Amino acid sequence: MATNQEDVKLLGATGSPFVCRVRIALKLKEIEYKYVEENLGNKSEELIKYNPVYKKVPVFVHNDKPISESLVILEYIDEIWKQNPILPNDPYQRSLARFWSKFIDDKIVGASFKSVFTIDENEREKHIEEATEALHILENELKGKFFGGEEINFVDIAAVFIAFWIPLVHEITDLKLFTDEKFPKLYNWSQEFLNHPVVKESLPPRDPLFAFFKARYEGLVAASK
Amino acid sequence: MATNQEDVKLLGATGSPFVCRVRIALKLKEIEYKYVEENLGNKSEELIKYNPVYKKVPVFVHNDKPISESLVILEYIDEIWKQNPILPNDPYQRSLARFWSKFIDDKIVGASFKSVFTIDENEREKHIEEATEALHILENELKGKFFGGEEINFVDIAAVFIAFWIPLVHEITDLKLFTDEKFPKLYNWSQEFLNHPVVKESLPPRDPLFAFFKARYEGLVAASK
Repeated sequence: MATNQEDVKLLGATGSPFVCRVRIALKLKEIEYKYVEENLGNKSEELIKYNPVYKKVPVFVHNDKPISESLVILEYIDEIWKQNPILPNDPYQRSLARFWSKFIDDKIVGASFKSVFTIDENEREKHIEEATEALHILENELKGKFFGGEEINFVDIAAVFIAFWIPLVHEITDLKLFTDEKFPKLYNWSQEFLNHPVVKESLPPRDPLFAFFKARYEGLVAASK
Repeated sequence: MATNQEDVKLLGATGSPFVCRVRIALKLKEIEYKYVEENLGNKSEELIKYNPVYKKVPVFVHNDKPISESLVILEYIDEIWKQNPILPNDPYQRSLARFWSKFIDDKIVGASFKSVFTIDENEREKHIEEATEALHILENELKGKFFGGEEINFVDIAAVFIAFWIPLVHEITDLKLFTDEKFPKLYNWSQEFLNHPVVKESLPPRDPLFAFFKARYEGLVAASK
């Protein structure tokens, strides 16, 4: 188990849901690490060296060995540090966890963002429909308190985007997509999840992030005129 | 180890590179299985039942438990049947294998297909550029005979798309993208890989597949006029 801060490092950006996934996993496993905030408008040489392919955060660096892609990082963390496992032990349940995490990335993240950050109204409506449909599919998958049952697991961590980022981004245009009425189970899950002590301590502060996304949205609207 | 054909089943379609990945993994591990060819123009009730989210092949069914998404299936197969491992044993090498397989799916598969199946010339040129850039990145990653070193591994299997489908699809428009001159290491790899006895026996017959894709291309061209 890593106790030396020099061994474990995370290159991140406060507003990134993908970075937040890694922070939750590290907190859950009680791993000490050095966090380096990247300025994505002026990327560091370290970021470019460690992730030359995408030049994106998160990059997780363990004993100078870099890993990119949040779900790949989660798998690695779970393999190296066995305490508080985030993937189920059973191979079939593991495969389902991988499937649903990929589903969140492929079907929910992009469509939910674009449900706000799209100027063309018809296109935006399509994204709203796609996001709604995908959230319904996920709603039906939720059997217990968490996707992991009584404890949060890989899918819960991947879904931090849904619990925290969707309401925040949708508030910009007052979009009522992810609500208690439309998604009772998933909405309840999001409240339980956000109140989980490990999650609570891993989330970015809401207000500055809301201001950041709102400014980005206003920039997009201004540019389209 | 499964020896009873009833236990292990693969719903596939001959022309799918994603199905081919699963076939290679099963052949490599010498798993007997029942193969069910799906007619994607008229999907079976079984396919819809087993993969209600995407209704796509491959679906791998082990003791009536279905798994979708080819890379998720490969991980499962490797966890259940330990012989001839396809993921490296070392956690860091495993994470790299996952990263590069995802890279192939995200950056190479779509762009390579669209380098042919795009009517608009400017758009098509963009896809050709994207595919070329991504293949160069992968070319630089290839250190040995295979991505797995002396033996084929997870990344090699994911890259069957590059070795077999890219040349086949690009031949339709006589596109000289993936050549010996431009990608000497990757091209050599593709020849070694296609000649690997396990791979050779897992590939679909080339001529009918070429005719299928050519007809699809001609349909696209005709529809655009």
